[in-house]
Amino acid sequence: MDELLARLRGGNVRALARAISLVEDDSADAHAVLSACFPYSGGSLRIGVTGSPGAGKSTLVDRLARGYREREETVGVLAVDPTSPFTGGAILGDRIRMAERLSDPGIYVRSMATRGSLGGLSQATADAVTVLEASGKQKVLVETVGVGQDEVDIVRLADVTLVVLVPGMGDDVQSIKAGIMEIADIFVINKADREGADRVEKEIRAMQSLVSQHAGDDVWVPPMVRTVASTGQGVAELMAAIDGMHAWLKQEDRLAKRRRRYWRERIVEMMRTELLREVRQHGFSEQELETYARQVERGKQDPYALVHRLVAERFSAVDEGRKQ
Amino acid sequence: MDELLARLRGGNVRALARAISLVEDDSADAHAVLSACFPYSGGSLRIGVTGSPGAGKSTLVDRLARGYREREETVGVLAVDPTSPFTGGAILGDRIRMAERLSDPGIYVRSMATRGSLGGLSQATADAVTVLEASGKQKVLVETVGVGQDEVDIVRLADVTLVVLVPGMGDDVQSIKAGIMEIADIFVINKADREGADRVEKEIRAMQSLVSQHAGDDVWVPPMVRTVASTGQGVAELMAAIDGMHAWLKQEDRLAKRRRRYWRERIVEMMRTELLREVRQHGFSEQELETYARQVERGKQDPYALVHRLVAERFSAVDEGRKQ
Repeated sequence: MDELLARLRGGNVRALARAISLVEDDSADAHAVLSACFPYSGGSLRIGVTGSPGAGKSTLVDRLARGYREREETVGVLAVDPTSPFTGGAILGDRIRMAERLSDPGIYVRSMATRGSLGGLSQATADAVTVLEASGKQKVLVETVGVGQDEVDIVRLADVTLVVLVPGMGDDVQSIKAGIMEIADIFVINKADREGADRVEKEIRAMQSLVSQHAGDDVWVPPMVRTVASTGQGVAELMAAIDGMHAWLKQEDRLAKRRRRYWRERIVEMMRTELLREVRQHGFSEQELETYARQVERGKQDPYALVHRLVAERFSAVDEGRKQ
Repeated sequence: MDELLARLRGGNVRALARAISLVEDDSADAHAVLSACFPYSGGSLRIGVTGSPGAGKSTLVDRLARGYREREETVGVLAVDPTSPFTGGAILGDRIRMAERLSDPGIYVRSMATRGSLGGLSQATADAVTVLEASGKQKVLVETVGVGQDEVDIVRLADVTLVVLVPGMGDDVQSIKAGIMEIADIFVINKADREGADRVEKEIRAMQSLVSQHAGDDVWVPPMVRTVASTGQGVAELMAAIDGMHAWLKQEDRLAKRRRRYWRERIVEMMRTELLREVRQHGFSEQELETYARQVERGKQDPYALVHRLVAERFSAVDEGRKQ
C-alpha cells in the first residue's frame, strides 16, 4: 500500500489506475487506499459538467482538458454514466483510447459506469476524485452523461458546476433545466452557432430572476458563456469564467464552507453505506431474506412491520449498550 | 386510521389523496397507513412506462388509461419525475388538472417529484402503489420522465415494463437504450409514423439476439408494438400485448416469482432506510455532524476511518447483545 501510494504520488499512471480500480470495486483494500490518499486530497479544483444528452459535454470537457494542459496544469477526467449500468464502459472506450493516444502523463481519463460499489455511483465517483487529487491533478473534471437526479448527486462534489445547454431543444428538455438551476455555477450555451441561442439565454435570465429574489448578498450569480465546442470557440472565455469563480470561492472562506456542506451530506451517505454493509454481513442470511420475500409476496407478512421489527431488534441492543 | 382506510377502500378520492400524501411525506402516520393498506394490496397489474424524454410517454399513458376505462377497469397513474426535485410538481400540474376535468372517480392521477422521503423516490413510489392497490385500482401505471438509473429503480416494481422509443434519435439516446434492454418487457416504438421506425426495430432485434444467447427456455421475448399516441393508433395492439404478457405471467407462478424477487430487493432497501432513520435519530446530532464536517474539510479527520469507527461502535454493542 505504501508503495502504491508512493508511485501514485510520483505521477505513475498505472498506480493511479490500479488505485481507482481498487476503490471502484469496493475491494477489501478500498478503505486503506482511501485513508492513505485522503491526507493528500483537497488541493484540486473540482469542476462538474452536466447537461442534457447530446449537449456536447464530452467535446467541451476535452477542450477544457487541453486548455488546462496548455497552461501546464495536470488534469483528471471522470466520465460518469449512470444511465448505462450494463454497457456504459464500452461507450466511453473511445475517449479513453483517445487519451492513451495522446500519451500525455499530465492527463488521466477514466469512465465510471458500474454500480458495483454499495454506495452507488456518486460515492464511487467521489472516492475516485480523492485518489485523483492525491495523485496531484490540479483540475479534476467530472462529466455526467445525462441530467437526472443521479447526475445532480454526482456533481454535488464539484466546487464549480457547469450546466451545458443547447439551443433548439424541446419542451421536455426545457423542463429538465428547471431542476438543475439550483446547482449551476456557470451556464454554458454550447452549439451557440445554432439558431435559438438568444432564446435559451433569455429563458435562463428569466429563471435566474425568480431565484435571486430569495438570495442574500453573498451570492454568486451564474454567468453565461457561449461556446462551440467542436471548433473551440468560446472555450477561453469559459476557462476565464471558471477562473473567476475559483477566485471568488477562495475569498472569505467560501470554498471551505462549500466543501464543509458537502462533507456533512457525504458523511451521512457513507454511514448509510457502511450500515448497509453491516446489515448484509450480520443482518440476515440470503435464506432468511428469501423466506421473508416469499411470505410478503403471499401477503402473509407485512413488510413494513417486518422491517421495523428487524431494525428495532438490532438497535435495542445498541441502546442498551449505551445505557450501561 | 380505520376510517381513512374504510373510505379509501370505498373508492373515496379524497381519502386516497390523503393516504398517499401521508406516505409521501414520510409522516409519523406513514407506517400505519402502509401496514393498513398492505393486506389489500397485490391485486393490481403494475405497468411501468419508461423511455427517453420527448418519447411521448405521457400521451401514451393517457391513451392506455382511457382504454382501460373503456373496458371499465379502474386505473391509477403515478407520474414520477426524479429529474426535477424542485419544480417537478408544477410541470405535471397540467395532467392532474386534466384528470380532474374528467371527474371520473375510476381514474386517479398523481405526480411524484419530491425526494422528501428518506428512502428516495423509488420507495415513495412503491409505497404509493401499495395505497393505490388497496384502493382497488385494477391497473396501476407508473410513468417516469427520463431513462436514467433512478428510472430503472422506479420501474423495478412493475409487473410489465414498457420501454418507449422513437425514431430519429441521436447516438446519445441510442446508447441509453442499451442500458434498459434488460428491463423491457414490451418495446413501444412511438411516433411510428416518423421516418426511421424500421431502423429502430432492427436495432432492437439486433440487441435482443445478443441477449437471448444467454437466456433459458422460460423466457419472455419482448414484443415490439408501433404506436402513434397522439392519434391513438396502435394503442389497442399495445393493450393486447400487455394482456398477453399478463396472461403469461399468471402461468406457472411467474408473477409470484417476479414479485418475490422484487420483495427481496425491496426489503433490503427498506432496512437501509430504516437504519438511516435510526442513525439520524440516535447516531449523532447535527452539531456533531457539523464538527466532523469541519474537521474533514480541514483535513484533520480522515472521513473513511471516522465512518468506520462510528458504525463499528454502534454494531459492537449489537454483537455483544447477541452473544449474551
